[in-house]
Amino acid sequence: MSPDDSGTEAVEAANTAFYEAMEQGDFEKLSALWLDDEISCVHPGWPVLSGRGEVLRSYALIMAHTEYIQFFLTDTRTTVIGDTAVVTCTENILSGGPAEEAGELGPLVGQLVVATNVFRRTPAGWRIWSHHGSPVLTENEDEEPDEGA
Amino acid sequence: MSPDDSGTEAVEAANTAFYEAMEQGDFEKLSALWLDDEISCVHPGWPVLSGRGEVLRSYALIMAHTEYIQFFLTDTRTTVIGDTAVVTCTENILSGGPAEEAGELGPLVGQLVVATNVFRRTPAGWRIWSHHGSPVLTENEDEEPDEGA
Repeated sequence: MSPDDSGTEAVEAANTAFYEAMEQGDFEKLSALWLDDEISCVHPGWPVLSGRGEVLRSYALIMAHTEYIQFFLTDTRTTVIGDTAVVTCTENILSGGPAEEAGELGPLVGQLVVATNVFRRTPAGWRIWSHHGSPVLTENEDEEPDEGA
Repeated sequence: MSPDDSGTEAVEAANTAFYEAMEQGDFEKLSALWLDDEISCVHPGWPVLSGRGEVLRSYALIMAHTEYIQFFLTDTRTTVIGDTAVVTCTENILSGGPAEEAGELGPLVGQLVVATNVFRRTPAGWRIWSHHGSPVLTENEDEEPDEGA
């Protein structure tokens, strides 16, 4: 049951690739990063999406409505046990896009989101099993964490 | 890589026990359900909490400020691969407590939260590796899902 460090770097590379695919609006790259099997995804404020069809459609939709998005990842923590990894990170997001249905987006919007990303080791590399992102709404939102690195 | 059904029932029992421990305000029962190792937890709107110390302190705090809480779980989906399970569910929460610092709680409040819970198989049973809960903020919040069951 002890955490297994082997693979941590590869997991973090897969995690970075996930956000890069979003930044690049590269739907094929993003699709290839997910497991083929029963995946799930929660975008900030959304209900749960299940299965490749629902999950990938949501990304196609988000990419279609996003002109620009950049993720500054902080507080990344990775735990590997056996063939599974859990990565938590803070997504400091800067984005812009066409006016959205329910939002009041200006040209560029900053957003603070925390994510739990679950990866599974496969013969082809680490693949995303689950992504859950949620808005940070606490009163400490503007405080810089200062517990070292 | 194909999902493994063995263990699904046991995982769902552990998931139910997690919410029952919250309902009962049973801190010991709740603590025993988490892995000993590097766990993480995101409460709705909160930043990431990491490690048993931070995670369990947050539950002690929540329990201290909660007089009453009930979870009606819907849309529970469980996928088991090897010794890891991912459970997603909708937590229809009814809760009440002493007035909270940053909230405007009346005596009883309903809340719609979605959760991704990651469990790990151990010799002592399934244990929680990660919990991530987030508020559902979409415009469909008041719609009843009607895709059967």
